[in-house]
Amino acid sequence: MREVAIIGIGQTTVEEHWETSLRDLAAHAISAALTNAGREMVDGIFIGNMMSGMLSRQESLGALIADWSGLLGAEAFKVEAACGSGAAAVHIGTMAIASGYMDSAIVMGVEKMTERSMPEVTAALATAADADYESDHGTTFVALNALIMQRYLHEYKWKHTELAPFSINAHENAMHNPNARLHERITLEDYAEARMIADPINLLDASPTGDGAAALVLVPLESLHGSIVPRIVIAGSAAATDSIAVHDRRDGLWLSAAHASALKAYGQAGIQPADLDLFELHDAFSIMAALSLEACGFAERGQGPRLGLDSELGPKGRIPVATRGGLKARGHPVGATGVYQILEIVQQLRGEAGENQIEGAKIGMAQNIGGSGSNIVTHVLKRL
Amino acid sequence: MREVAIIGIGQTTVEEHWETSLRDLAAHAISAALTNAGREMVDGIFIGNMMSGMLSRQESLGALIADWSGLLGAEAFKVEAACGSGAAAVHIGTMAIASGYMDSAIVMGVEKMTERSMPEVTAALATAADADYESDHGTTFVALNALIMQRYLHEYKWKHTELAPFSINAHENAMHNPNARLHERITLEDYAEARMIADPINLLDASPTGDGAAALVLVPLESLHGSIVPRIVIAGSAAATDSIAVHDRRDGLWLSAAHASALKAYGQAGIQPADLDLFELHDAFSIMAALSLEACGFAERGQGPRLGLDSELGPKGRIPVATRGGLKARGHPVGATGVYQILEIVQQLRGEAGENQIEGAKIGMAQNIGGSGSNIVTHVLKRL
Repeated sequence: MREVAIIGIGQTTVEEHWETSLRDLAAHAISAALTNAGREMVDGIFIGNMMSGMLSRQESLGALIADWSGLLGAEAFKVEAACGSGAAAVHIGTMAIASGYMDSAIVMGVEKMTERSMPEVTAALATAADADYESDHGTTFVALNALIMQRYLHEYKWKHTELAPFSINAHENAMHNPNARLHERITLEDYAEARMIADPINLLDASPTGDGAAALVLVPLESLHGSIVPRIVIAGSAAATDSIAVHDRRDGLWLSAAHASALKAYGQAGIQPADLDLFELHDAFSIMAALSLEACGFAERGQGPRLGLDSELGPKGRIPVATRGGLKARGHPVGATGVYQILEIVQQLRGEAGENQIEGAKIGMAQNIGGSGSNIVTHVLKRL
Repeated sequence: MREVAIIGIGQTTVEEHWETSLRDLAAHAISAALTNAGREMVDGIFIGNMMSGMLSRQESLGALIADWSGLLGAEAFKVEAACGSGAAAVHIGTMAIASGYMDSAIVMGVEKMTERSMPEVTAALATAADADYESDHGTTFVALNALIMQRYLHEYKWKHTELAPFSINAHENAMHNPNARLHERITLEDYAEARMIADPINLLDASPTGDGAAALVLVPLESLHGSIVPRIVIAGSAAATDSIAVHDRRDGLWLSAAHASALKAYGQAGIQPADLDLFELHDAFSIMAALSLEACGFAERGQGPRLGLDSELGPKGRIPVATRGGLKARGHPVGATGVYQILEIVQQLRGEAGENQIEGAKIGMAQNIGGSGSNIVTHVLKRL
């Protein structure tokens, strides 16, 4: 198996891109990534996207984006794993390079969410859940996460405000990320007073939607010949599934797919959780941040919020998370999110994270969650 | 790179499965393929599907289908390349096994089309074309193919009825395929008198929609240890893209992505077109059959129909096509079609094609076309 290196990164801001279409967002990110890599062409393009058919009446994203980005001829496919689509595309592109079938690839994510009404977007997001047994009964995606959070607060006796540090940290970090959706510090008081969305999830527990695209250029490490410094490799790339419907899980407070995919990625990379310098976790809702930290070995069950209360998640903490704003404040353009996470780790490992730089960062992990924990993709990146 | 073998196949019939949901169709095909392979679990599942979000309000097919098929935990992703989604899933699964990231995989396709109204299905199919520059102007998918066929008849001076042999052959072959959508011989007269859909495409130029699922089990060839006979390997697996919009092509009568992906697959397999014993081509419309034969080296430009008129496409002809009915008569459940094609080649190479058996078949090719030729995936299979 060939080792895979990331030699280029590109992104758009996450925001309401009223003047920029789906294809333009994708082409901007690709163009930036190719320029960053010093390349003009690739063998393949893997595109993480969830909702283009429903929201933009556009499938066939592979041909569309290859065409619009000046990469015509290249192999190009869309990959879908709900909110985990971005990292799924990276995972599949990694296998394509590792296999020898391709010598270069763009792996990317793009989502255009803000040109439709909120009810339409909410309905499209609900297709990540079980259509027959969850969504058709009126359960939205945030409602499913609210059920999980409600049970968590009850089971482990946390007060709602004790989960505030996840969002406060994310918003603080986003202040220094020019591509983030929200540049707005929040306080414990803001959090406590935020408008309720689906009890107990309030506005400051939930990540904002947005339009955005992010792209990486992958090549075999063996092709680099010392020309690129530092070398960033994908040391672990793994996924796992859990029941799509929350009510079908043996244990609704345990992200078994996060645990399984992290264990696999740790094994591939030959590391332990303690070796990680940062963790871009999937804080679509604060409850998911807590559960991810527990499933990946950073906290005992039920004790994820303790890390936030003890200031262990900030840039100088034990395990920095959401270092450029996370889903909560960088924003969550669904199918692109997993690629933003990995791109931000590359920035950290290259020492290009500016005010957000984690000093001496050498190993980082990104975890992208599809559905309410049903499809989870975990990557470990290393600076060689 | 590890060689990849196909050790199991499973399919549902292609029809209007009123009583069977999307997830059930998928689970039936997976279950049949696993039984055929003598396996119970796999490392990964790659699902070709185009329209589940739009027609069934269900994305996250990876988790859904892993869950419903009793394969929970396995990695699972949906792959989309319009009508080429099925073969795209096979291609990606092949790379996953070749890379060493996975030691077994289900590659499959599933599409549920008949529970929605025809206008809804037509609109969903149109998302394979360019939303901004084709579909939004009212051009349906069949209309785009009609433009190509009109130009082809004009340019090469064929009479419409001279393209009839493609459909007559496909319908004849489907008579012996119990999984085919249509069991109905047609004559030249039937063809000539068929109802016009989008001039010059009539009802007997066009493949029927349908519900269906097909699945294959892939493993590394090196893992077989002589236990399975005959051994069928994926000797070539390649794709290419062309402009998504038909009007953007330099030459609207040349499938450049079919040509490029076939050349790549021939090279990987070390064969010439003349070495092929059969060719499962993408006869969604008769014009696509003609253009595929030309792009893949079986006829000079503009001369594809000649092969049909000379009876070279039947089971005993120079290059048998649509040997189990093709898209025209086996049916075209969009995202599943590419997997049906490859499955049917496995049947031929195993000698399990019954009345349709191509004697001594050792090498077969399947070509799956996404959009109006914008994303094309070609596979060459060999019996060792």
